[in-house]
Amino acid sequence: MNRNASIHTVNRLPKYLQCLNELKSKGVERVSSTEIAELIGTTASQVRQDFSVFGSYGAQGYGYNIDLLSTELRQIMGIDRPHRVAIVGVGGIGRALLEHMEFEKYGYSVVAGFDVDDTLIGKRVNGVQIYSVKDIAQVLDENAVDICILTVSQSAAKEVAQHLAQVGVPAIWNFTNEKLDLPKETVVQNINFQDSLFVLTYYLEHNSNAEETSA
Amino acid sequence: MNRNASIHTVNRLPKYLQCLNELKSKGVERVSSTEIAELIGTTASQVRQDFSVFGSYGAQGYGYNIDLLSTELRQIMGIDRPHRVAIVGVGGIGRALLEHMEFEKYGYSVVAGFDVDDTLIGKRVNGVQIYSVKDIAQVLDENAVDICILTVSQSAAKEVAQHLAQVGVPAIWNFTNEKLDLPKETVVQNINFQDSLFVLTYYLEHNSNAEETSA
Repeated sequence: MNRNASIHTVNRLPKYLQCLNELKSKGVERVSSTEIAELIGTTASQVRQDFSVFGSYGAQGYGYNIDLLSTELRQIMGIDRPHRVAIVGVGGIGRALLEHMEFEKYGYSVVAGFDVDDTLIGKRVNGVQIYSVKDIAQVLDENAVDICILTVSQSAAKEVAQHLAQVGVPAIWNFTNEKLDLPKETVVQNINFQDSLFVLTYYLEHNSNAEETSA
Repeated sequence: MNRNASIHTVNRLPKYLQCLNELKSKGVERVSSTEIAELIGTTASQVRQDFSVFGSYGAQGYGYNIDLLSTELRQIMGIDRPHRVAIVGVGGIGRALLEHMEFEKYGYSVVAGFDVDDTLIGKRVNGVQIYSVKDIAQVLDENAVDICILTVSQSAAKEVAQHLAQVGVPAIWNFTNEKLDLPKETVVQNINFQDSLFVLTYYLEHNSNAEETSA
């Protein structure tokens, strides 16, 4: 059933969760699809359609129970289970993520870092041991890493990503601005700063904001 | 006419440009919608529809001239014009962007940084002068900044964003994971690390990759 979820539905899931968390922190217990739609900037029918893909239906005249829906969303996204993360490239962005992102808050443990810089290898950054990229296969295996954060330079991105795929890393979170061509078995999620800045510039030049459509 | 471009079309524009740049670097002069579709992972009809929104039509049996289309895309996105950028929050991610992102390559000049940290104020980071956030209105105005990169802590995000909107910053590139509620005049583009990690986790747990639909 989840196979039917479009990329757009999946991209909205974290926004639904954040919206439910905010309502919960205000002591709200139930919410209608119309209220959710207003909070995340889409339509009520889109909200109902998104949730129905996962088998969640609000009761007529009652809406959705926030606790239940929130638990369901976390299960669907898999963030109710712990994940083990490694950061590949502990320079600029990688280091900033290591030092500032609240991984533990949602059950992500950062268990290793990798770099080519001899002055970093063997050290700890924010409590995380930094290894040589040469040892990547062994360290990832020993630590049962399921997500690698790819924060190497753009020029090294394709080669390192190929290597990660070869040693069987299940998922790569790609910050390199480089399009990776990997086997389908490797899950890739891109955060592309350059694309995002271009999209911002488009809306700046057109004097408008992005509007979520029902697509 | 551009008003008709959906958020999904706009999000694909940088990918089209990157694809054309790559073909150009290989000496290719023209390309069909089918070839573009394969390279960026969508359908040929989607490509033709996206380009037609901007009045670009390939010639039957010839396809698109890469130079012309690339120039048109840059004009449509507004990246053929220079932009002036300030970074608000020069800690972790802000500093990493300042030191590692190739802003100049596409005509973005970083003209100022802001922080609350007294040890940074008055200094230069990567050649960029760091000012106190107290002086933000004056410095932004004097430097004709059109894009502010918001890299303050999540707890400070809403307040600082409100202030930026009040002093008339045209566009905010928001890295704070916080949803900003600003007047429509302020263009906002979000890079939400947390959302992206959750989407990655969804695909990891469902053993699949995101597939672009024709939506």
